[in-house]
Amino acid sequence: MARQTGKAMDGFVNGVDVDRLKGTVQAMEAVPELAKFTFRATNRWMKGGFNRTTIGGYRGAGAENHRDAFVIDNAEPSLIVGNDEAPSPVEYLLHALVGCLTTTFVYHAAMKGVQVRAVESQVQGQVDLRSFLGLREHLPGGFEAVQVRFRVAADCPESELASLMDAARRRSPVANFVVRAVPTSVVCEAM
Amino acid sequence: MARQTGKAMDGFVNGVDVDRLKGTVQAMEAVPELAKFTFRATNRWMKGGFNRTTIGGYRGAGAENHRDAFVIDNAEPSLIVGNDEAPSPVEYLLHALVGCLTTTFVYHAAMKGVQVRAVESQVQGQVDLRSFLGLREHLPGGFEAVQVRFRVAADCPESELASLMDAARRRSPVANFVVRAVPTSVVCEAM
Repeated sequence: MARQTGKAMDGFVNGVDVDRLKGTVQAMEAVPELAKFTFRATNRWMKGGFNRTTIGGYRGAGAENHRDAFVIDNAEPSLIVGNDEAPSPVEYLLHALVGCLTTTFVYHAAMKGVQVRAVESQVQGQVDLRSFLGLREHLPGGFEAVQVRFRVAADCPESELASLMDAARRRSPVANFVVRAVPTSVVCEAM
Repeated sequence: MARQTGKAMDGFVNGVDVDRLKGTVQAMEAVPELAKFTFRATNRWMKGGFNRTTIGGYRGAGAENHRDAFVIDNAEPSLIVGNDEAPSPVEYLLHALVGCLTTTFVYHAAMKGVQVRAVESQVQGQVDLRSFLGLREHLPGGFEAVQVRFRVAADCPESELASLMDAARRRSPVANFVVRAVPTSVVCEAM
């Protein structure tokens, strides 16, 4: 049985606690309210194109969940009049996209008992900065297109690999964010 | 003159080198090809919901631009069967969104000579994880909605503040990514 499902003795597949994950799925199926999560961040401008985000707790599974805060910085490349202190926001977006696709793929492979040995990806996106700089407001202001290329080593036929990646693409929260328009409100008040 | 434009003696406003920024705008207006940038990232799966992104050079202003690599990690919260080693992909997305809005706001304020003293923001997004977990594929798979709240202290009337933030929202590459659907290809090959 352990052999058939690819499950290690401790119940983990691909480093994922499959029993706990399946328990989570069952709990959310029974009580959909448990599946509703709210993630949050606060940001403070430092100088020029440099700003700092703090990410702490989140709401999920019907409760507020504490977590030690992460601090991450945004900066701009020198060509965009920045100082390269950190990746730029558009690069964090690419990071979020491939990371989310990878995790979604690995989790679903684990639930199916497919052992994954390696996942590598490359992502790139093209942006025309004339919109950002106020020169061409009618241009798409964000990435014009994004290309992701995965290389995966997994103990399954290539057809199953393709179907797992296709499911990852449909289910990944960040990928969905990219391919759909999301209602977004921006409120600004003077302090 | 320096007083009127809010420009410091060194030509910087809000930490932004305004002369250089205006020069960049003029160059891109004259030669649109210079405005076309390609940003890239590579990612490697580590274990479970933990993976690592490397971000280095980028193409822009008609050339390949080297930059020392940044390494950033994605992880999952414990409630989503992770170990909280780093923020999650959806949280990086919120980070990218507020950071990009902030920078776009600050750059355009600088170009208009408006001195900004403080910018703080809070962002939150709601996601129903039943899509991620494969329970409800017809649900929106990413954030259902996102709310951003800015508090800004700047040397301008509140009406100008509102119009600057409105421009930031229209011009921010990441905000555009969020509110529009972006053509995204995902290719996967076995290794």
